[in-house]
Amino acid sequence: MSPDPSLAGGIRALLGSDEFHARHLGPGRAQEAAMLALLGFGSRAELIRATVPSAILLDGPLALPPPATEASALAELRALARRNEVWRSYLGTGHHGTLTPEPIRRNVFENPGWYTAYTPYQAEVAQGRLEAMLNFQQMVVELTGLPVANASLLDEATAAAEAMAVCRRASKSASQRYFADAGTHPQVLAVMATRAHWMGLELVVGDAQRDLDPAGVFGAHLQTPDTEGRLHDFSATIAALHAAGALACVGTDPLALVLLRTPGEMGADLAIGSAQRFGIPMGYGGPHAAFMSARAELVRMLPGRIVGVSKDSAGNTALRMALQTREQHIRREKATSNICTAQALLANMAAFYAAYHGPEGLLRIALRVNAMARLLVRLVAQAGTRAPTLAHRQYFDTLVFDYGPGGTAEQAALARAQALRINLRRLDGGRLGMSLDETVGIVDVDDLAYAITGVRSDARALERAVDVTVAEPESVPAALRRRSPVLAHPVFSMHRSETAFVRYLKRLENRDLSLVHSMIPLGSCTMKLNAAAEMAPVGWPEFADLHPLAPAGQAQGYGEMLRQLGGWLAEITGFAAVSFQPNSGAQGEYAGLLAIRSWQHARGQGHRDVCLIPSSAHGTNPASAQMMGLRIEVVACDAAGNIDAGDLGAKIDQHRDRLAALMVTYPSTHGVFEPGIHEACAAVHEAGGQVYMDGANLNALAGLARPGAIGADVCHLNLHKTFCIPHGGGGPGMGPIAVAAHLAPHLPSDPFAAGAAIAAGRSGAQAPGAVSAAPFGSALICTIAWMYIRMMGADGIRKASEFAILNANYVARRLRDHFPVLYAGQGGLVAHECILDLRRLKPECGISAEDVAKRLMDYGFHAPTLSFPVPDTLMIEPTESESKAELDRFCDAMIAIHGEIERVRCGTLDRIDNPLRNAPHTAASIAADWPHGYSREEAAFPLPWVREAKFWPSVARVDNAAGDRSLVCTCPPVADYEEGGA
Amino acid sequence: MSPDPSLAGGIRALLGSDEFHARHLGPGRAQEAAMLALLGFGSRAELIRATVPSAILLDGPLALPPPATEASALAELRALARRNEVWRSYLGTGHHGTLTPEPIRRNVFENPGWYTAYTPYQAEVAQGRLEAMLNFQQMVVELTGLPVANASLLDEATAAAEAMAVCRRASKSASQRYFADAGTHPQVLAVMATRAHWMGLELVVGDAQRDLDPAGVFGAHLQTPDTEGRLHDFSATIAALHAAGALACVGTDPLALVLLRTPGEMGADLAIGSAQRFGIPMGYGGPHAAFMSARAELVRMLPGRIVGVSKDSAGNTALRMALQTREQHIRREKATSNICTAQALLANMAAFYAAYHGPEGLLRIALRVNAMARLLVRLVAQAGTRAPTLAHRQYFDTLVFDYGPGGTAEQAALARAQALRINLRRLDGGRLGMSLDETVGIVDVDDLAYAITGVRSDARALERAVDVTVAEPESVPAALRRRSPVLAHPVFSMHRSETAFVRYLKRLENRDLSLVHSMIPLGSCTMKLNAAAEMAPVGWPEFADLHPLAPAGQAQGYGEMLRQLGGWLAEITGFAAVSFQPNSGAQGEYAGLLAIRSWQHARGQGHRDVCLIPSSAHGTNPASAQMMGLRIEVVACDAAGNIDAGDLGAKIDQHRDRLAALMVTYPSTHGVFEPGIHEACAAVHEAGGQVYMDGANLNALAGLARPGAIGADVCHLNLHKTFCIPHGGGGPGMGPIAVAAHLAPHLPSDPFAAGAAIAAGRSGAQAPGAVSAAPFGSALICTIAWMYIRMMGADGIRKASEFAILNANYVARRLRDHFPVLYAGQGGLVAHECILDLRRLKPECGISAEDVAKRLMDYGFHAPTLSFPVPDTLMIEPTESESKAELDRFCDAMIAIHGEIERVRCGTLDRIDNPLRNAPHTAASIAADWPHGYSREEAAFPLPWVREAKFWPSVARVDNAAGDRSLVCTCPPVADYEEGGA
Repeated sequence: MSPDPSLAGGIRALLGSDEFHARHLGPGRAQEAAMLALLGFGSRAELIRATVPSAILLDGPLALPPPATEASALAELRALARRNEVWRSYLGTGHHGTLTPEPIRRNVFENPGWYTAYTPYQAEVAQGRLEAMLNFQQMVVELTGLPVANASLLDEATAAAEAMAVCRRASKSASQRYFADAGTHPQVLAVMATRAHWMGLELVVGDAQRDLDPAGVFGAHLQTPDTEGRLHDFSATIAALHAAGALACVGTDPLALVLLRTPGEMGADLAIGSAQRFGIPMGYGGPHAAFMSARAELVRMLPGRIVGVSKDSAGNTALRMALQTREQHIRREKATSNICTAQALLANMAAFYAAYHGPEGLLRIALRVNAMARLLVRLVAQAGTRAPTLAHRQYFDTLVFDYGPGGTAEQAALARAQALRINLRRLDGGRLGMSLDETVGIVDVDDLAYAITGVRSDARALERAVDVTVAEPESVPAALRRRSPVLAHPVFSMHRSETAFVRYLKRLENRDLSLVHSMIPLGSCTMKLNAAAEMAPVGWPEFADLHPLAPAGQAQGYGEMLRQLGGWLAEITGFAAVSFQPNSGAQGEYAGLLAIRSWQHARGQGHRDVCLIPSSAHGTNPASAQMMGLRIEVVACDAAGNIDAGDLGAKIDQHRDRLAALMVTYPSTHGVFEPGIHEACAAVHEAGGQVYMDGANLNALAGLARPGAIGADVCHLNLHKTFCIPHGGGGPGMGPIAVAAHLAPHLPSDPFAAGAAIAAGRSGAQAPGAVSAAPFGSALICTIAWMYIRMMGADGIRKASEFAILNANYVARRLRDHFPVLYAGQGGLVAHECILDLRRLKPECGISAEDVAKRLMDYGFHAPTLSFPVPDTLMIEPTESESKAELDRFCDAMIAIHGEIERVRCGTLDRIDNPLRNAPHTAASIAADWPHGYSREEAAFPLPWVREAKFWPSVARVDNAAGDRSLVCTCPPVADYEEGGA
Repeated sequence: MSPDPSLAGGIRALLGSDEFHARHLGPGRAQEAAMLALLGFGSRAELIRATVPSAILLDGPLALPPPATEASALAELRALARRNEVWRSYLGTGHHGTLTPEPIRRNVFENPGWYTAYTPYQAEVAQGRLEAMLNFQQMVVELTGLPVANASLLDEATAAAEAMAVCRRASKSASQRYFADAGTHPQVLAVMATRAHWMGLELVVGDAQRDLDPAGVFGAHLQTPDTEGRLHDFSATIAALHAAGALACVGTDPLALVLLRTPGEMGADLAIGSAQRFGIPMGYGGPHAAFMSARAELVRMLPGRIVGVSKDSAGNTALRMALQTREQHIRREKATSNICTAQALLANMAAFYAAYHGPEGLLRIALRVNAMARLLVRLVAQAGTRAPTLAHRQYFDTLVFDYGPGGTAEQAALARAQALRINLRRLDGGRLGMSLDETVGIVDVDDLAYAITGVRSDARALERAVDVTVAEPESVPAALRRRSPVLAHPVFSMHRSETAFVRYLKRLENRDLSLVHSMIPLGSCTMKLNAAAEMAPVGWPEFADLHPLAPAGQAQGYGEMLRQLGGWLAEITGFAAVSFQPNSGAQGEYAGLLAIRSWQHARGQGHRDVCLIPSSAHGTNPASAQMMGLRIEVVACDAAGNIDAGDLGAKIDQHRDRLAALMVTYPSTHGVFEPGIHEACAAVHEAGGQVYMDGANLNALAGLARPGAIGADVCHLNLHKTFCIPHGGGGPGMGPIAVAAHLAPHLPSDPFAAGAAIAAGRSGAQAPGAVSAAPFGSALICTIAWMYIRMMGADGIRKASEFAILNANYVARRLRDHFPVLYAGQGGLVAHECILDLRRLKPECGISAEDVAKRLMDYGFHAPTLSFPVPDTLMIEPTESESKAELDRFCDAMIAIHGEIERVRCGTLDRIDNPLRNAPHTAASIAADWPHGYSREEAAFPLPWVREAKFWPSVARVDNAAGDRSLVCTCPPVADYEEGGA
């Protein structure tokens, strides 16, 4: 401790470019030594050599730039940011300028209390964000006029594709044809087309009023306002579809719905759209939350997470994720969808935006946006003969001006717009489109009018235009106007003042356990440090405010950042090319399988349709494979948890001619470096198949071994696990894929270009197709991964994996005498996670794994992953960011719980009335009459250090079954709300 | 609620430029109506006419710009920010570039959980920031080698002046002379000179080694490293001073102390300095935290707040502010100082910076800064004959190069520096100074060397210079090197990883009640909304990273922002000129009295030295007056709480010839608009005195009446009360003063210019003198007030006062049947606050006002101001930002407490064992054995809504007396810390 204040020595040693390593890694030097000593190793290198099979161990450092300090990495990224140009972008396609309310930016978007939380599987310590998600569902329900909604989807395009799948399931029609309105945004068309193709469906694109044959389809996607801003009444079309046994999904815009008749009122079965313009930065494409609502009868077919209302064991209202049996983690290839990570953080922000503005504020915003559009029409008209024609006279915020063929006038308008740093959307036939938004002021409209006409309004004409009544009755015809109230639920009016609103945010935040409280030792997700320096650039306008259709010349900073990051990820995985399009891990799986199938198809092997998946795989694997039209064959695991080589060989033989791929997670979801991985990959290749490696466990591998060298052809990377994007309470994620050279031509297509081709009838141009709504997925948050790799460098990336392995083995060693560790690899060592076997507790003493998980809450911890991949086990992944002190606290808690179980076993504690089965204990229960045979202190303060920072679960054990039996997925009725802020 | 979706109407109505009003003001329209109805008024205007004396009521709107939306105000301020230029500033004088660690920026600096807290008078709900402040004290103690420290002072200059006052008190010398080393930073000399002058002391400036006569002074301020970077060993000088009965204060630099022998080791009695470079942005002068440490014997003479260790009623360690009897709020004119608001937030950040880097990190930073200086010396020397002379060969981070007389070479160097956007400090005699800091990298040193010499090192020479051992043994001679360990306390090493560090921050944050939890209804401070949009610009580098000596050409944005804000404040107060120099309210009082005395002196009225102060005045009033050399005469208050007109007249008559000023708070600290204010001011003027109006209660006045029109000559404005600068848990504040035209020439002088004149022996040039270390005080946070006024406009500013009055009267009316309201004005109405009289409770039922205050914590509220201005009362100022719902919750809590008191009175509750006297109740006590005659639920959940968001005090009632009896103001010993993060 006592430093040697020598003033000699060169400067380089003092530059501290690797300072961030010590910030990211939990254990300090002394801690590391103590942990290695317990494990019987003299060095970390020894431990790694003993753990990772030598056949796969990298023999040199990765070729990454040397590590940078926080300050220099930020300066470098800032220089890249400056190469982006933030123009006024009126490019529409469902992406709009918006103003993130400052209290939401500061207290949610930039607050680790919100963004470091995990998906709310443990409802008792997640009531805050569950309430926020329920608000999102309520908002969607009220805006769309349909009674049930989910808690967000990845983007508008995948939402439309998911709706198509719901229609196919729900429709009694025998048709395999789905109709899509040509007025749908191009990227949405592109993703629907990809999905349809591999599901064996046909997507028919045309004019819904003219080309749709209700009897010839199982469903239709209708769009209003459409991509050119037209407003439609689809009531008759939908009635016709229903009469023919087909379903209808309406794609729409949440701000327009403040003024427009709802999809529900038109009779729609489903509605989808993007909530981006509710305060979420465009971020060059994402992340933002898409929404989906539906008729009540369809709720069990909805994809994604649904928050529902239930009760806790004390009879109080408690929220939780409902109907989980629909989802991939339970239903696997029979799931409604492969969706797992959604956009929880962004959905919550959008719901808070609605609560912040309230019905009156939203109405004002919607009216203003429409009024600005009407003002623009008026100003353009004043230009007389130089004015182009307004293409559509009914609109909310989007206008199309027609310059006619020839192009000179259109070119001149574009040139004027460019000079004003304004982006307009070029449409076919000499037409220019523009979508106005809440950031647009009178000056912007004046500039737009000049760009469009070449005539600058004089000040008085502008004044007049602003002051006079600018009603243009045909803009939103009476028949299309909304008559029903908007966001009538009190939650959208109670917190009107900023003081009240911020307290509401904090009240919800403080109900939730996140990484700011204690470790979240999940096996199913890598909950490592999300450093503040990594998060800072996400808020920079140069990254946040770019439209996904911004020309490349304005996005040079993005281009270079993604090029660098892609290169680093390729180096880490040992592959040749990377696509950033998949915006979740499951999307990455889908995109990877798409590349494989597309490549096979191109080689005349399109008939290969069997996908081998080990029984231990994450549920998204079979769900994704199913969506790619693959037949799933499950490969057994042996007693050691490894892939059963015999069964694998047999299955390969059995399906040799139709073998498309093996999907394999490495290290396995059993937390083990399987030694036979090379052989397995070789056998698949020998049979003509490809190997898809699930990158979920890359945190044990990065810098130590490379998927490409192990034998995989493609893998996805969970940037929200391994590369420090925070989990956001259930999203955003990012799932780029890396592929070997032969698959590079089969990476996803640009969704805008592909969609434009489809709309124009050139659908042949689209292969391999797009998988999500933006070319680079959720580009904005790639800055987080960039910062992480830039600050860690090759040495740091390797160290992170090494410490992840060290921490996991330390926990396994400390706990193994109390709870058996189910699987281990060579030398009895685990990889970066370990599975504790609790299966004997229930028969022996009536204690379930769930009881242990809930009891951990009383000690202040989030439960490890429960019953995955093996029922009645806990999977623990401590990550490299936890210190020995925190690991010890966790192990002490687990050992204390073991002691409690032993007391149940020997009868000192009752088998029914014990602190495990009654866990978690709320403060209210502690203060109330105490009917239990153990003390309040045992219940709430079972170890001394719990007193230091007691985290109180806000509800007692939640009853999931009761909530599912009588599903309520909107906010409780008005009467349940006490009077609030407004 | 159901909106009328009419699409007609002009756009202006939709622009919503006054949208922020509804964010800032608590009650919505329906709430306002209900509150007015209870009070018996039909409109807010009626209420105001009934409350505010018509004689002072403004008859028209203020001339302020119309309100702006959050987005447009931010855009406007962003445009001003762009007019600042952030150069590399090596201008020294105790201000240095620094890197705020990102976790501290995000989780403290930008987190309302930290910055909206009040001063920790209520220790039970403030243990988090008390621990942070104790860490600050521990850091100062360890760095300076002296055993006691306070919890920050306003700036380095006032700290030096305060130390001078301590020396005067502590020294037995009869001398009235204080010596100051000429190597002291100029602004520090300037403020010492001002203070000395009005305290009747003489400040002698000279070379400490040459000019100091120990027998002729009562103390001396010695500086190392000094303003030119020289390092001194003052051991002998200090010994000589002590031998002569004089004391020594050493001004120093915290980063240098990592490498240097400590002031304590040199025998110093006191040490002072600025902690700015520990992660606090320079902010064009502030805010940053100054520090002061001392020998143990001096602790009771220290100014400012001191955090100490005590016990709670359960015997657990608990922190609280110690030795409050030293302070102005108790000791008034006999206080050690007028300091009240300090720099808590910045002190906490500096302490967190130390804990973040730890001893090893700080050592690396200090060594690197020194090594960069040594590298610069080496590179300059390589230029051979073109190199200027290094003026001082012993240095830590500051170098002076001597170009000799003539100036051509110096001018050329300055020109080169300017071309590189580098600021250097011009010193007399053709010398250039530069202070290096932790942001300096090799590229910067290379640029500096070029600027200094005109020779650009070639790459190889630079490489060589970097790589070779660059020890310059004379840089820090062995005799001056630190041998003692740096920051050895474990709190500076326990939280090394960011994960552990952020959890530590959150653990502390969550112990504290702040505005994010519930209202803080203080009468002594206006705890209104600190809007996120107001706070955002504080983090912009264009405002945050300017050195206070940056040339005006680089600070044009600041210039214009301050000019606009000054104009608005002048308009609001009805005065002619504004000075931003005072960086706290008490400093404003001092500066205002300085202007008065300076003006009187200029008119030959320098003998006027009597200051009339009503007995109800805030303690800073007499303390400030005393520091200005004024004799305090207390004016009595009448039974209605107003200034006793008879006593005022008598005192004026008595002191007519020597009457300097009346200090008056309006509305009074009794919460009443005194009707006689005009007459009182006129009587003072008639006697030749001036009227100082304390602006603490301006929140009842702004937009309704103007101090200038009421009859005051000067007032200060608490920007941290009325103008939304957050309280920061005890600072920063800002106390600009506004003055009538005749006082404008007597506003404080530029401290740098005044100090330079003093150092050069031209001390006559300094009148009226400087009051704080920077020309514009804490300029950075003036952006907050700018945003507030810009978003509110004239109408909003007036509304804020009106709602403040409405809310206070609503609370008074709801509570008056339960607790008597002590004072009221016309019509039984109060101003913006009300005093509840609890004096009968103690004799009648043994319940003290403190018991009520502590019991409020169990209901989730911070106590109102206790026993000020009247003992055993509670003063409540709800502010305009609280909604009716929150006011009702508070009133319900108070009424429930009244019910509890009644139960004590009638014997249903025990007189000793009742929830009031045992309050607050911790979670630990609820879970423990329960010895009380009332239930746990009554204790912890006394009303149903408390369950919604229970806030648990982290300790039980704190024993202040015990802590003061055996004062410990450093962190508890190592053994008390469990093993932490590292």
